[in-house]
Amino acid sequence: MNVLMGIGKAGLKREGKPDLLVILLPQVCNASFLFTNNHFKAGSVIYSQKVFEKSQTVRAFVINSGNANCGVGKESITHARMMAQRVAKNLDIEDDQVLVFSTGIIGKPLPIENLLKAIDSACSVLEPLDLKRASEVISTTDSFPKYDFAKVGSLEVYGFAKGAGMIHPSMATMLAFLFTNAHVDSFTLNQLHREVAERTFNSISVDGCISTNDSFGIVSLGVVKEDLERVKQAVYEVSLNLAKKIVEDGEGATRIIKVIVKNASIELKARTIAEKIATSNLVKTAIFGKDPNWGRVLAAAGSTPFPIDQFKVKLYIGEHLVYDGKAHLKATENAKRYIEENREVQITLDLMEGKESWVYYSCDLSYDYVRINAEYTS
Amino acid sequence: MNVLMGIGKAGLKREGKPDLLVILLPQVCNASFLFTNNHFKAGSVIYSQKVFEKSQTVRAFVINSGNANCGVGKESITHARMMAQRVAKNLDIEDDQVLVFSTGIIGKPLPIENLLKAIDSACSVLEPLDLKRASEVISTTDSFPKYDFAKVGSLEVYGFAKGAGMIHPSMATMLAFLFTNAHVDSFTLNQLHREVAERTFNSISVDGCISTNDSFGIVSLGVVKEDLERVKQAVYEVSLNLAKKIVEDGEGATRIIKVIVKNASIELKARTIAEKIATSNLVKTAIFGKDPNWGRVLAAAGSTPFPIDQFKVKLYIGEHLVYDGKAHLKATENAKRYIEENREVQITLDLMEGKESWVYYSCDLSYDYVRINAEYTS
Repeated sequence: MNVLMGIGKAGLKREGKPDLLVILLPQVCNASFLFTNNHFKAGSVIYSQKVFEKSQTVRAFVINSGNANCGVGKESITHARMMAQRVAKNLDIEDDQVLVFSTGIIGKPLPIENLLKAIDSACSVLEPLDLKRASEVISTTDSFPKYDFAKVGSLEVYGFAKGAGMIHPSMATMLAFLFTNAHVDSFTLNQLHREVAERTFNSISVDGCISTNDSFGIVSLGVVKEDLERVKQAVYEVSLNLAKKIVEDGEGATRIIKVIVKNASIELKARTIAEKIATSNLVKTAIFGKDPNWGRVLAAAGSTPFPIDQFKVKLYIGEHLVYDGKAHLKATENAKRYIEENREVQITLDLMEGKESWVYYSCDLSYDYVRINAEYTS
Repeated sequence: MNVLMGIGKAGLKREGKPDLLVILLPQVCNASFLFTNNHFKAGSVIYSQKVFEKSQTVRAFVINSGNANCGVGKESITHARMMAQRVAKNLDIEDDQVLVFSTGIIGKPLPIENLLKAIDSACSVLEPLDLKRASEVISTTDSFPKYDFAKVGSLEVYGFAKGAGMIHPSMATMLAFLFTNAHVDSFTLNQLHREVAERTFNSISVDGCISTNDSFGIVSLGVVKEDLERVKQAVYEVSLNLAKKIVEDGEGATRIIKVIVKNASIELKARTIAEKIATSNLVKTAIFGKDPNWGRVLAAAGSTPFPIDQFKVKLYIGEHLVYDGKAHLKATENAKRYIEENREVQITLDLMEGKESWVYYSCDLSYDYVRINAEYTS
């Protein structure tokens, strides 16, 4: 697909690595963007949200990493506008077809002159989009690049993302951009996007902290006509894979925790309980300690507003039924070995009351999470 | 005041230390008890809640530490009843005037025969209540005993507590028992109790995890007539001091974090935002790293359903105004020194919109929190 990228350096990353990415689409495209629900938003988010609201289409975007462009006053919005205008001028496109994204440290003013120069430089050499390279440029505390690809017949969906800390739904410190060659109008794309986001990026957590900068976009390049369900499935798969990579790269993580709550009476209950378990510091430290501490799982499950019947529910760690109204010591021993031997630990709570289910991903809480976040300075 | 205690050993603690406490009141007393809101409750909580609901009075209680009597099936309720009956038999009082509390590991069956013998032994030698000793007996991962005392004229309020981990409102893995010589009827005592609990034990958090066993009781010994506001104030002070000791003893804590949200439009908003800041892992690790990372504070503040005006709010760390719509770098440097030099770190967010405020206490998140909770085995 004919998506181009340009890379620049604005000196925002300590190591002097590339920190600016410009993406140019082949034409004005239908798209859908979801932004953080945090009321404390980066200037880039405020700007892009407003611009996109009007047009519902996009031609280019620019992403800087290393500075969140947040918490520095209304100047942050002006700076985002200046970046969009500079991209538009360089590429001879409309200002309001350019979106701006930022990720990094909060509270430091953007060195805007450096950024504008980096934009000039990035726009001067455009090359085909390289997903791995794009992810690397926008990364901050990430330890590996995040990208994924799905191809079903003539349908293509591909994307790249970044994120490792301050990861929690709605949205995480997380940037993710997907592209599909399918033609979908912006309204339909937005519906599909919201549905997919709920079960992917909004069902992962590294530390329960919602970022000021999260953005998740899908662009329809409009090349092929495809069945909508098929598009949705491919978008879901790529989104889930990217989301799981973020959890896998969760700061300090040694284990992925996959929480399944099933047979709930309503979906919201399954989701709320799954999230509560997946984000419990006590559950997360237990998994780090390779301890099948199902008491902590049930204590977390019981601490939402939704009642559970503690004498009826069943709890599995991996395939091991460790609790069904009472403890199973032998299964608990087996569950300990299961945790020791697997990097992805599956916890399944069967509420035994209905048909709804939800899956939520998080990671364990380790010494390294504390180290990374105690040392990462403001 | 004529409150007696007896101490026993049921072999529940690894070190073979005393783990059973019987408290005998001078007569049947008015009282108020608040229990955990967790739907996954210990048998002791289920039993005591049911018994107390009927009588609203109490004559004795028995507390074991080292085993939560939770997650072991309905037998846990039977065991609680057996403990109450054994205390009643030993002390020649009514069964339904005895409450049972447990704290410790979830999922291990109570060695009920040992407990019954320990009750016999505890009841055989009663001595005046020693707050420090009582706290020690019921402690689990606590590193110091928690007790407090207030005397205003003829009014006396005193209490003891335990708790260090799985601490989060409504209620924490926390047991707290207060006694006052004032005469208050049970209904009034319960009202007063709920109000005090909201601003004390329900406004602290160590790790955001709600326990299965939390209980907080106040007993009116009925000796003196006192002004109700005066009683409430004294109960509030003792409760707040005990709650703060629990945070101070938070697993792995090196700093107490006191979050004040002021000038909110409504109380619930102040409270919700204060809790969100105080329980943010990113804020907690920043304080552990002695980093005045106000960006994380504002990101947490913005991530509740309540909107905040990011260009109007003011944020102080100690007395240092680090943000008022934009960053103040010099104040941030001073705030860093302030955190380095103080064990209690005060974070004040002024929403600049109304008159309501809330104070919430938590502690930092350190390597030791992870160590303690990764090693504490199920």
